[in-house]
Amino acid sequence: MPTEKTALTPATHTVPPAKFSHGVKKGNILQVAGQVGFLPAVEGQAPTPAGPTLREQTLQTFANVKAILEEGGASWDDVMMMRVYLTDVDHFAEMNEIYNAYFEEQGLTQAPAARTTVYVGLPKGLLIEIDALAVLDN
Amino acid sequence: MPTEKTALTPATHTVPPAKFSHGVKKGNILQVAGQVGFLPAVEGQAPTPAGPTLREQTLQTFANVKAILEEGGASWDDVMMMRVYLTDVDHFAEMNEIYNAYFEEQGLTQAPAARTTVYVGLPKGLLIEIDALAVLDN
Amino acid sequence: MPTEKTALTPATHTVPPAKFSHGVKKGNILQVAGQVGFLPAVEGQAPTPAGPTLREQTLQTFANVKAILEEGGASWDDVMMMRVYLTDVDHFAEMNEIYNAYFEEQGLTQAPAARTTVYVGLPKGLLIEIDALAVLDN
Repeated sequence: MPTEKTALTPATHTVPPAKFSHGVKKGNILQVAGQVGFLPAVEGQAPTPAGPTLREQTLQTFANVKAILEEGGASWDDVMMMRVYLTDVDHFAEMNEIYNAYFEEQGLTQAPAARTTVYVGLPKGLLIEIDALAVLDN
Repeated sequence: MPTEKTALTPATHTVPPAKFSHGVKKGNILQVAGQVGFLPAVEGQAPTPAGPTLREQTLQTFANVKAILEEGGASWDDVMMMRVYLTDVDHFAEMNEIYNAYFEEQGLTQAPAARTTVYVGLPKGLLIEIDALAVLDN
Repeated sequence: MPTEKTALTPATHTVPPAKFSHGVKKGNILQVAGQVGFLPAVEGQAPTPAGPTLREQTLQTFANVKAILEEGGASWDDVMMMRVYLTDVDHFAEMNEIYNAYFEEQGLTQAPAARTTVYVGLPKGLLIEIDALAVLDN
């Protein structure tokens, strides 16, 4: 049975500058592209991080992931896997604190997602990037 | 049809210290979080790597991934993708040797999983991290 | 219902040197292993990159991913997620240009895949690695 793959482009996001989608959904699988801590897009302005700190960028990144999930009719409860890319091993404890507090607030009703955290290079000024794989109810 | 996402927490693992799961299963999709070479959890003790060598850590990491698969009723034969994170390009050949010998012993009956290996930063003392995506029979 | 997981080994690829598959397919999920810019395999010769430049390696990497998709009866339109691993942040703009032009030419009929780009270490001489997750029509 043919199933359409659709792009998820929340109002807070620019139309992607390259031939990729911020998120896609096909059948019950939803994939969120790597999100960073950019503030909601403003036409004619370059993307701007929410701030220089890990906290500001992490919370904005979560908001960006969530906007894409919601655009696809999903919620944090549908997320199976989060990949967290940090630039500095010394940020791990603080990221975990922010992560825990955030998901505490979100009121998950199912098991939290699995997660992998690794330390990579990111464009200058960015401290965190997150992508997510979700499986929706059939 | 609503489908519950459940956490997979083998007896060898601690309850996760943060709002993530060691593994989750929803429908026929099973995702294993990034595993490292920590020995089975001992209450009241900090997580301890199986040893300082790549061999010790790789074999323990495999054991940790496998425990989560089994907790979800899956086996290595269900694994579609393994992501292997190493800290040192010079470890690739040795990791491959250990990898091949291990999966030889496991007696796979289906095609081995796809794999990506990249070189990243990991917390001090850790040489390898692996996560896995499995698709179970319907 | 048991579902076989099958290996995808295009004619352009060697039989994998380790216990992994270039790609696997099970049910409607297809996973492509990390591909790099190696030219089609020639028996008795070591794998050789298409060239030293980002452009040569990126285009060859795309060809290698595509060969595996096609071996599994899939196309770029089925790809949900591409993970792009670069070694140098300064390569991002050029990679995007190559990426856009390539997918323009491929004539996608559905939303382009989501994507994450991070900067990691790769074996000497390699500038890019890409893996892909596809969901086929049911």
